[in-house]
Amino acid sequence: MTTLLPVDITTLGVRAETMLSELGSISSESQRLVRLFLTPEHRKAAGLVATWMREAGMTVSEDALGTVRGCWRPDKTKRLLIGSHIDTVIDAGKYDGPMGVVIGILAVETLHKADAELPFGIDVLAFGDEEGSRFRSTLTSSSACAGVFNRAALATTDSNGVTLADAIKAYGKNVDDIPAAAYDPAAVTGYVEVHIEQGPVLEAENLPLGVVTGIVGQNRMRVVVLGEAGHAGTVPMTMRRDALTGAAELILAIERIARENESDRMVATVGRIEASPGATNVIPGRVGFSLELRASTDALRLAALAQIKQDAARIAGRRKLEIAFEPFYETQTTACAPDIQDLLEQSVAALGVRTIRLPSGAGHDAQVMAKLCPAAMLFVRCRGGVSHNPAEFASEADMGLATAALFGFIKRLAAKQ
Amino acid sequence: MTTLLPVDITTLGVRAETMLSELGSISSESQRLVRLFLTPEHRKAAGLVATWMREAGMTVSEDALGTVRGCWRPDKTKRLLIGSHIDTVIDAGKYDGPMGVVIGILAVETLHKADAELPFGIDVLAFGDEEGSRFRSTLTSSSACAGVFNRAALATTDSNGVTLADAIKAYGKNVDDIPAAAYDPAAVTGYVEVHIEQGPVLEAENLPLGVVTGIVGQNRMRVVVLGEAGHAGTVPMTMRRDALTGAAELILAIERIARENESDRMVATVGRIEASPGATNVIPGRVGFSLELRASTDALRLAALAQIKQDAARIAGRRKLEIAFEPFYETQTTACAPDIQDLLEQSVAALGVRTIRLPSGAGHDAQVMAKLCPAAMLFVRCRGGVSHNPAEFASEADMGLATAALFGFIKRLAAKQ
Repeated sequence: MTTLLPVDITTLGVRAETMLSELGSISSESQRLVRLFLTPEHRKAAGLVATWMREAGMTVSEDALGTVRGCWRPDKTKRLLIGSHIDTVIDAGKYDGPMGVVIGILAVETLHKADAELPFGIDVLAFGDEEGSRFRSTLTSSSACAGVFNRAALATTDSNGVTLADAIKAYGKNVDDIPAAAYDPAAVTGYVEVHIEQGPVLEAENLPLGVVTGIVGQNRMRVVVLGEAGHAGTVPMTMRRDALTGAAELILAIERIARENESDRMVATVGRIEASPGATNVIPGRVGFSLELRASTDALRLAALAQIKQDAARIAGRRKLEIAFEPFYETQTTACAPDIQDLLEQSVAALGVRTIRLPSGAGHDAQVMAKLCPAAMLFVRCRGGVSHNPAEFASEADMGLATAALFGFIKRLAAKQ
Repeated sequence: MTTLLPVDITTLGVRAETMLSELGSISSESQRLVRLFLTPEHRKAAGLVATWMREAGMTVSEDALGTVRGCWRPDKTKRLLIGSHIDTVIDAGKYDGPMGVVIGILAVETLHKADAELPFGIDVLAFGDEEGSRFRSTLTSSSACAGVFNRAALATTDSNGVTLADAIKAYGKNVDDIPAAAYDPAAVTGYVEVHIEQGPVLEAENLPLGVVTGIVGQNRMRVVVLGEAGHAGTVPMTMRRDALTGAAELILAIERIARENESDRMVATVGRIEASPGATNVIPGRVGFSLELRASTDALRLAALAQIKQDAARIAGRRKLEIAFEPFYETQTTACAPDIQDLLEQSVAALGVRTIRLPSGAGHDAQVMAKLCPAAMLFVRCRGGVSHNPAEFASEADMGLATAALFGFIKRLAAKQ
């Protein structure tokens, strides 16, 4: 296979960084990056992305959930989708999400300048709701594109009580147009997303890029421990039914179970906790905490959850407590399309760079798009594995390589069809 | 020794219960008992107590901190003080505090009706600030009587931002009069307080009354655990510096240390906890929790605290965390006066009732009054050891016995002088 045209990797990396810096300056706060779904900052970022898309040779439209769609070669019926998101967490870094959009635009621009003729057109998609930072729903914009939008999400509210439906209207869109945002599966050849790893594996392996094997499923639940409140000064230790010491024992059991399954990339996290009544001099009678569990396969994850519940029953029995699990979110593991994985791996190898395959512990738009078409992801190394933080960093060199790999992938996909 | 006059124990118990029910109906809320310091409900309760005091033959005054003082035989220079408090916690029972005031009034009434002649007069004190439920200060009213009021307390605020100084003024008092509230130590022969145990020891021993040996000291502090926040889905278990799992390990170590010292009545309580940033999908980077530690002696308590800090250092080292202890309150153990303890014990024995001596795990006005004069306490059994709860209960029979014991104590004290 010969290269379709020479790609200047260094220049692409520098341009990606420049574009991400410009996008990263669009924030609702001056001291930190905050860009939430369907806000004035989302509108401003969407406008900038649309400008870049037009400069790269695309026609631009926007669907009912604000997804910016850059369409290259609209005359082609068959479409390859390249996407990621432009919303952020609160106090975000500038790479998580926008990098995949920018690299998609640069790849299309390269094709466009070369006046390349492929058996498919390309749509670059800039989704607006991946982080779930504003509403209690998430991934709604990719869900609309994939045709799996759940209308119940329209009633969810932000911290000001504004519903998603109201926010869509205020953004100038119409909820009646949501069904029209869905792609026809027959017209889509695949979806690919470039994203920072948000973990330390590639850095530890000293590799710039990794091919994602799948997006791990997860269980999220609230765990409630019930004991008996009492006077901190007068109830002897042996007569206590302390909900917090019971919760502490369970939190350590959860940690131990996840550590025992470390080789299967199991992670378990208790991120929130509160004790009631919550006074210095009162024994806690009630403790609630969040539990989030992820593992490389659904079977492993569910087995670990069963083990956690067994440990909880043992702790509750010994300490005379009641422990209840209240699930509120569950996703199954999403496998990435093997064919796309192979083409991505070949494209990286063609750059003279070794790569590995790894699962994604974080959720991504790709897990929703996989319901529409074959979908896969390319991970870019990020420093220290840090994300959701202003210290988030991906190098120009690595982003240049990722753009070249994506470009190579498109060529290889075209050659196969 | 002969009895000064016959005491009808049953009638006294019934009267105590009737008076406590009337007092317990004075609340700022209709569904639960809430009577905070220097509020309209405090004013109303103080008025009822003053009426009872007058009916029992006392002249009544009120000092700058709202303490109602019933003065029996004002002609006597030497004064025996009998007191407790009439403020409550939020959602309180009706016995904690008011019972000591009511029993003091009933004992004085018995003396008054008999036209008893003693070498001292008696002041019954109804303090207004023992629970510390309104301001961030506590025991201010007994502190004023004991001459150890700390003026810094005047600047503390309630949840509406009202300072203690402003509340005193709104209650119709003048902060300039606080020094005048202090008793002359030379004029006081002692202080005695009857109170529910707030613990399960007397019930377990099947005894109505107990003589308090001392009020245990305590340390209160905030413990801060610093780790590193991170993405719950992507940071492997072995690379985490999770502040909450570290805190959980320390909370269990604290529990273990207190349990090992159970025979010394050590209790350790973590009543408040919070994790930051506090999201389901973020590893906690920072956890703060409260620690309260009490034991029968100061030496034991401080040794346990040192052991807890050693364990914290070990946990911090192994988990790559930082753990800091920020003390905000400390009281030393207050010994009750041996002479008064002996007289109380003899008075209970004279009723044909076995008693034991036991320390108080809870704080009381007596610990402040001990700075003024010899002070001691008589505990009354309460059902299930429950207090600070509407289920709080002391029986009429036990309260009758307590009144008779207090009456007997006064006689014995008089006989000794």
